[in-house]
Amino acid sequence: MTEIVDRTALTRVEDALDRHLADARARAYQAGPGVVALWDAVVDAAADGKRVRPLLLLDTHAALGGQRPDAALQVAAAFEVLHLAFCAHDDVIDGDVRRRGRPTVWSRYEQAAAAVAAHPEAARSAGLAAGILAGDLLLMLAFRLVATAPLERADDVRAALLDVVDRIVQRTASGELDDVLGPIRPSSVGLPDALTTAAYKTAEYSFVGPVVSAAVLADAPAELVAVLARAARELGTAYQLTDDLLGTFGDERVTGKSVRSDLAEGKVTALVVLARETSAWPLLAAHLGDRDVTDATAAEVRRALERAGVRRRVEELVDSATTAALQLLGEPVVPGAARDVLGRHAAMFEGRLR
Amino acid sequence: MTEIVDRTALTRVEDALDRHLADARARAYQAGPGVVALWDAVVDAAADGKRVRPLLLLDTHAALGGQRPDAALQVAAAFEVLHLAFCAHDDVIDGDVRRRGRPTVWSRYEQAAAAVAAHPEAARSAGLAAGILAGDLLLMLAFRLVATAPLERADDVRAALLDVVDRIVQRTASGELDDVLGPIRPSSVGLPDALTTAAYKTAEYSFVGPVVSAAVLADAPAELVAVLARAARELGTAYQLTDDLLGTFGDERVTGKSVRSDLAEGKVTALVVLARETSAWPLLAAHLGDRDVTDATAAEVRRALERAGVRRRVEELVDSATTAALQLLGEPVVPGAARDVLGRHAAMFEGRLR
Repeated sequence: MTEIVDRTALTRVEDALDRHLADARARAYQAGPGVVALWDAVVDAAADGKRVRPLLLLDTHAALGGQRPDAALQVAAAFEVLHLAFCAHDDVIDGDVRRRGRPTVWSRYEQAAAAVAAHPEAARSAGLAAGILAGDLLLMLAFRLVATAPLERADDVRAALLDVVDRIVQRTASGELDDVLGPIRPSSVGLPDALTTAAYKTAEYSFVGPVVSAAVLADAPAELVAVLARAARELGTAYQLTDDLLGTFGDERVTGKSVRSDLAEGKVTALVVLARETSAWPLLAAHLGDRDVTDATAAEVRRALERAGVRRRVEELVDSATTAALQLLGEPVVPGAARDVLGRHAAMFEGRLR
Repeated sequence: MTEIVDRTALTRVEDALDRHLADARARAYQAGPGVVALWDAVVDAAADGKRVRPLLLLDTHAALGGQRPDAALQVAAAFEVLHLAFCAHDDVIDGDVRRRGRPTVWSRYEQAAAAVAAHPEAARSAGLAAGILAGDLLLMLAFRLVATAPLERADDVRAALLDVVDRIVQRTASGELDDVLGPIRPSSVGLPDALTTAAYKTAEYSFVGPVVSAAVLADAPAELVAVLARAARELGTAYQLTDDLLGTFGDERVTGKSVRSDLAEGKVTALVVLARETSAWPLLAAHLGDRDVTDATAAEVRRALERAGVRRRVEELVDSATTAALQLLGEPVVPGAARDVLGRHAAMFEGRLR
């Protein structure tokens, strides 16, 4: 990661994000101390992010010769805020208590409430309310930043950006919903479904949204926007598949996420679909969706998946998605500078696991 | 209600709402069948609403001599969509399975999942995901409708509308959060807190938002906007207090809501705060937040509150909020037509209980 980070760009992103969150928090004073405290929890949970989405947007905008740096910075911040919104809601849905080593917004409120509440249901409602409302406030802020980006006399650009946001939010919702409904009928999920879920759940808002927004802001021709969108989707798929691998084979101390959780939640990832026809299946099937799975059993499942070659097959899928992205970026319509920027982002995936 | 409904306006609102929801659903086809089905559940849950928010906006805009009927209609629809978004999330937070006699979005998904899921946790996640994502999609649609309202060469009006939406969403979040956190430390909630929660939870987006947006669209002077905002807040407070009364004394067959639920959830409404110093308190305190309270006990609590005069005192609060609204509307800055429109909305509260 570090090699691709432009310190100046990162500082500009952090400053913009700080400013927009501080402005929103300041507006919350009119609403009451409860909401101000909720923004504080949000800001705290947002600290130390890698800001990959805003940096990808700014890099792409610059590489395409974009002439709207101020609007690009604001829309870049919007994508980080959108990410925070999805995290807040995703953590509620999955019941995750930690993210990147920090307590999640909903779990802070539930724990604080549990310490004093007479009824456990009241503590549960407090956690749900805080997590859901935090996400709502962030979602509104993200949309507001796009809608008010400094774009004088460019209403068509603003309309196009609002369409991009609509499209990616609908696709993210699609991926998230399929991710949660998959475990209910795991056998109905095929490899194409698992790959679509992987692409939509994260790739749309993490890669396609920033890249396409940058292209729109840089007045790129439609043909170029389409090629970049496809390349970004491949990159995003590689990213999510890598994330699935880390969720099973990763080092908990590095990822900050338990390697039991995907298994316990019964997530039907590409890994699970590919395991079906292998010797690892009986053991995996017996523990998929088992909330009480132990560390020792999870380790056994992990070893079985490695022995059966399932890990290697998913790594191959990561490689082919990355190769597809690079091939698309090699098309003549893509300017060299944009190819370099997205190629460098693709390089992130190599070595993320090894 | 019926007397104030202008059938032509209602038809225009229904048509606009249908069109915007259908457009959003059509855009969802690109995202996948899961999201299209989610929109279907949203559209079904949205049927048969009274559309009081859009009608209030259109009536006020017309009464103030507003010249932006198309933008007003789109922003009016946005407020109904915002209402649907808050309902979707509120139902998740409160765990309500029915609203206006129809199953809520989250509960449809949880029930469908429970019928086939091996683990109850998977069904719970399915319900959470559907309810939260439905609200997210609606929230984005509401914001999109405001951001894209047909307002040529009126960027200041659009910016003002986006500010109105920001302010009311933050206040609604504040009211909702306090509503849920109140039961955790019920003794810390005073009458002013309970009244603020009542005003913010519903009045902001149901009354202040539509009225102030209408005034902004009609280019009303700042002084008039301020008076109308205060009057709308009083009306909204009266509305929420009436709702609290219906939640305890209402006819379940009419409200479609169990009269046990406020008691079971331990909501610290004005009714509860006012009961503290009365003979009804020991019985109420013993069952506040009791999830397993029976119908018979709820009826006993109800009778104790009536005997102790608590019901009457809340009815007096409704009357004084309504009177305050009418007094504000009597100020010289308010045009006669606007006074009539808001006065007619105020008249809704009289007789809603009697």
